[in-house]
Amino acid sequence: MYKKIAIIGVGLIGGSIGLAAKERKLAREVVGICRRESSRRRAEEKGAVDWATCDLTKGLAGADFIIIATPVGIAVETAEKVCKNVTWDSILIDVGSTKEMVVKKIDEMVPRNIDFVGTHPMAGSEKSGVSSAEAKLFDESICIITKTRRTKPGAVRKVKKFWESLGAGCIVMTPESHDKHIASISHLPHLVAFTLLRAVKPESLRYAANGFKDTTRIGASDPLMWHDIFMSNKKALLMAVGSYKKALASLERTIRKGYSKRLVDILTASKAIRDTFTDKKKR
Amino acid sequence: MYKKIAIIGVGLIGGSIGLAAKERKLAREVVGICRRESSRRRAEEKGAVDWATCDLTKGLAGADFIIIATPVGIAVETAEKVCKNVTWDSILIDVGSTKEMVVKKIDEMVPRNIDFVGTHPMAGSEKSGVSSAEAKLFDESICIITKTRRTKPGAVRKVKKFWESLGAGCIVMTPESHDKHIASISHLPHLVAFTLLRAVKPESLRYAANGFKDTTRIGASDPLMWHDIFMSNKKALLMAVGSYKKALASLERTIRKGYSKRLVDILTASKAIRDTFTDKKKR
Repeated sequence: MYKKIAIIGVGLIGGSIGLAAKERKLAREVVGICRRESSRRRAEEKGAVDWATCDLTKGLAGADFIIIATPVGIAVETAEKVCKNVTWDSILIDVGSTKEMVVKKIDEMVPRNIDFVGTHPMAGSEKSGVSSAEAKLFDESICIITKTRRTKPGAVRKVKKFWESLGAGCIVMTPESHDKHIASISHLPHLVAFTLLRAVKPESLRYAANGFKDTTRIGASDPLMWHDIFMSNKKALLMAVGSYKKALASLERTIRKGYSKRLVDILTASKAIRDTFTDKKKR
Repeated sequence: MYKKIAIIGVGLIGGSIGLAAKERKLAREVVGICRRESSRRRAEEKGAVDWATCDLTKGLAGADFIIIATPVGIAVETAEKVCKNVTWDSILIDVGSTKEMVVKKIDEMVPRNIDFVGTHPMAGSEKSGVSSAEAKLFDESICIITKTRRTKPGAVRKVKKFWESLGAGCIVMTPESHDKHIASISHLPHLVAFTLLRAVKPESLRYAANGFKDTTRIGASDPLMWHDIFMSNKKALLMAVGSYKKALASLERTIRKGYSKRLVDILTASKAIRDTFTDKKKR
């Protein structure tokens, strides 16, 4: 499918892409580009890529499919370096959790020989690092692919095929739509989990049961990664927080006033929404 | 250990007590008392009790260990009926998730022949009903036992031994302490999960991944049960909601103002709290 896939940033997502691309033979070689020698060694030890290097120029040389899998906060500066190095035809994607700001900036900088498409594989967990990477991470997951006025339809088709080969189902939308949806369904829940952990009395923590553990699981996610996500999706996230605060205030008032019927109605409506989901892991 | 254990309300908790008590032979017979004929039949079909009846008097006759496992909202009126029926020496416990109000009222009504102790097994799930009951539900769980000025130390010892026989570790505290701890670590997370489900845009629900599912799992809990819990622990719950709203406002402000360092500090502190827990089920 490709001659050389270059993955910049071999962590949970980058490493899982490498493992899956190797397993499914999507390229003649899969190369990892790391910032630190220690990460380079771990990526190779894990077998997440065929070989890894800290030398960007060497890693990129001849790559016809390039993936930016760094933290969102350095995705744009990484793309700048790619654009300076790559003079041949190549596809470039990122895998960050926020899209509007990053895609806009990369769209503006890419030269004609590089086809850039923003993507967001909705997989992963509270774990991070290549040690948690797995080839099956994207199986049955959703990958959102963004499309702007500058995105080439041919490139979208190829990138869609790439993610489908890795096991994901793809949905194409604008970066703005992506950020609104994901603020609501992913970034807000993370913010809520982080908040809940801070709000609980320390002396009550010992009584935590499974409910608390599940509700706060994603609060163990990487702080630097989530700093970048919250900061780069500030507008949509604060809108989602606004809706959440309204719902919270309404539930609080209902309990305070002792409105029994309304309380049952609210809880019933919430349960009905949750019941539409099936849990992968049966409990 | 006992001649006859009578369980009033054979749902998830009552049914699991029955299964565990039978398996561990804690009584010569284990009887279920149900309100509806359909529940009576399901309890017997599941084998959660030796036999079940809708006739309270018949079910209670001769029972020396009586368990109120009804929804919290009818625990007190159920206790009244027990007190009218039971003229012999017996131990009475409830298993409700809120304690101060219920224990106070039952403490005041019990005659001298009945030793009442409030308990709260911290097990269960978003599931309900006897069909989800299991003998192992209390293994490695925590059971809080409440003690008031009226609680007899001998009765506390016996009830502690009962729960330990079912696999739980016991902690004794006042009903007031219980309600504060549990408002913070259990009732607040439920309220947060219910709220999150209402706050998410319906059109974004299709993009929900595992993070959202875990964070909202307990939002699929029984609305009537949680109505009773929220209403009967209103004071402590609203205090916990107050702390939560403060933490939420502080995180929101930090993001709005773009305070990077402070944001990383907050997320790091939250993660550190979550990292103190180990998850039973490895992901």
